[in-house]
Amino acid sequence: MDLKFKLLKENSCGARLGEFQTKYGVHRTPMFMPVGTQATVKTLSPEELKMCFSDVILANTYHLWLRPGEDVVDNAGGLHEFMNYKTGPILTDCGGFQVFSLAKPKDISDEGVNFKSHIDGKKLFLTPELSIEIQNKLGADIIMSFDECPPFPVSHEYMEKSILRTISWAKRGKKVHSKNDSQALFGIVQGGEFPDLRKLSAQKTVEIGFDGYSIGGVSVGEDAETKLKMIEYATPYLPKDKLRYLMGVGEPIDLIDGVIRGIDIFDCVLPTRLARHGNALTRDGRINLRNAKYTLDLSCIEESCDCYTCKNYTKSYIRHLLVAEETFGQRLLSIHNIRFLTKLMDDIKLNIEKDTLLDFREEFVKKYNNK
Amino acid sequence: MDLKFKLLKENSCGARLGEFQTKYGVHRTPMFMPVGTQATVKTLSPEELKMCFSDVILANTYHLWLRPGEDVVDNAGGLHEFMNYKTGPILTDCGGFQVFSLAKPKDISDEGVNFKSHIDGKKLFLTPELSIEIQNKLGADIIMSFDECPPFPVSHEYMEKSILRTISWAKRGKKVHSKNDSQALFGIVQGGEFPDLRKLSAQKTVEIGFDGYSIGGVSVGEDAETKLKMIEYATPYLPKDKLRYLMGVGEPIDLIDGVIRGIDIFDCVLPTRLARHGNALTRDGRINLRNAKYTLDLSCIEESCDCYTCKNYTKSYIRHLLVAEETFGQRLLSIHNIRFLTKLMDDIKLNIEKDTLLDFREEFVKKYNNK
Repeated sequence: MDLKFKLLKENSCGARLGEFQTKYGVHRTPMFMPVGTQATVKTLSPEELKMCFSDVILANTYHLWLRPGEDVVDNAGGLHEFMNYKTGPILTDCGGFQVFSLAKPKDISDEGVNFKSHIDGKKLFLTPELSIEIQNKLGADIIMSFDECPPFPVSHEYMEKSILRTISWAKRGKKVHSKNDSQALFGIVQGGEFPDLRKLSAQKTVEIGFDGYSIGGVSVGEDAETKLKMIEYATPYLPKDKLRYLMGVGEPIDLIDGVIRGIDIFDCVLPTRLARHGNALTRDGRINLRNAKYTLDLSCIEESCDCYTCKNYTKSYIRHLLVAEETFGQRLLSIHNIRFLTKLMDDIKLNIEKDTLLDFREEFVKKYNNK
Repeated sequence: MDLKFKLLKENSCGARLGEFQTKYGVHRTPMFMPVGTQATVKTLSPEELKMCFSDVILANTYHLWLRPGEDVVDNAGGLHEFMNYKTGPILTDCGGFQVFSLAKPKDISDEGVNFKSHIDGKKLFLTPELSIEIQNKLGADIIMSFDECPPFPVSHEYMEKSILRTISWAKRGKKVHSKNDSQALFGIVQGGEFPDLRKLSAQKTVEIGFDGYSIGGVSVGEDAETKLKMIEYATPYLPKDKLRYLMGVGEPIDLIDGVIRGIDIFDCVLPTRLARHGNALTRDGRINLRNAKYTLDLSCIEESCDCYTCKNYTKSYIRHLLVAEETFGQRLLSIHNIRFLTKLMDDIKLNIEKDTLLDFREEFVKKYNNK
């Protein structure tokens, strides 16, 4: 399915302002997508996601395949119906990242990956065809080709073998994709920190032809500079008229840096994971609300924030909820953190419009790092 | 503070239709109050409580005294401000029940109770004066006298000593209550399963004079028949023009039976506790949503229910959330269970109006017990 991506503006620095279409409407990029791992963005309702101005959300194929199973979701009419998320698109990943990071398989062949479920140890075999079949049943609006996600670092030799395998998997996946009319299919560029392999992976993936392109394998252990280079090595070989999706990146500064390198959409568990550990994102850096210094603090997390949490709750109360292990505290922080990132993306869009994103970055980083 | 309780109707069976006033408006009885143990009704927002048509909610003095401490709540301007509950009154209990059930003190004197915190083992001493002082700081609209809650069963001799102590504690508490203008103070009737002691406790407590009367020590281990008798032994000695509050009772049939015996308000952790264990209340009895038979069930919990959960979510999805340990599942069940009880209380009011409560009970019990 063509997402009718329109590149509205491109800054000299590389940042892109764009929009794409689904049956849910027109979606503006750059965009951050919250993660609903198990068909729910942890602690939040669909209405709260809307209040946070979330648009596309992500669900994990690996997790849903294992539990409740794609047939259970299909029985409900797909993810939108199953989880009652009806205000925006859903994207599913291919399962690759979770298979390689959670199940740590030792048996990877060209055919597919043998591994054991991280839940009950059951033996499983995931292939590019099966990944697409599962995603067809999950019924998200945007789905991903199955890829190998090698750890960092691996040898150039291994990585070359790996990307060639991922390219052949991408072809096989595309061939069985049965819902072209309702699901956009993205290819995934891998290649680690090797410029020639990122280039090769990008070129070969584009050759196959997809509705958008993901950049994978970033943010799995490398330093900040390497991360950015991994993006830079790939983007010159991606078509300008397709969405570019940087997978698993959500740190505020990384989002800005990704946008500067031409990325349109991002996803990360960061806002909800931070919330579960009592952390709030603020323009002055992360703060941990469990800290005793907030015991009597009647201010909200951020005066300038328009989220439900900041409009209604004090640091003192949120701290109490966290210390008393009340899940409502995690929910309040999740709302704030997601809104923080969607607001950041709005500011980014505004600064692309004005072609001032590099200045915005400088100011943002200064404030964020010098709390 | 006078709650201006008006007895609007009394059925021959004993059930009372009434109303009382606070600055939040007029509140109709019989009423069920959800419990916000630690200044939050577990997993729910104030807006969701309102959506469930909750009115008065309860918070626990013992828990809030220990964590975050009454001064932290006072610093925010009291519980309403602290927890952002601004649409209805709050009631605090006296701490007695938790001290006796959680901390299991061995050192009870006429002066007060020595015990250790169930959180960190810290030595604490709670007196009737301190209980009221804490409750004055918590700032609820209705507060309770400090009482001893003996286990069940104890000897007649012990219980007599205990109620005389509770009566002397009630006098001492009333004397130090410093917020008569904004907080109604209730006395608590104890006496276990002994008719003469329930009578004595009720008479002596009424003699002191309170804004309402609680019946305590019911639902701590006795059989159903004994429970009901404990209420019946006390109510004839309570004034008709004051609220009668049965503490810690929330089982649907017990609520109906309490109303039939002249009770106006009830509280219980039941709806939220059941939710955390995957149970939903329905007119056909309790069901456990973790059951595999709901895996593909696309119906809602109860077709006739008007709650957010039943309007939007299937059993299949809720089951998935529970099995996957997503807190959103507990939240959806908490919403349903609380709405179930507030709806039950509305049906009870309607049947008192029509003087058909005994028939309603018969039908309800038949359906509820024969799932």
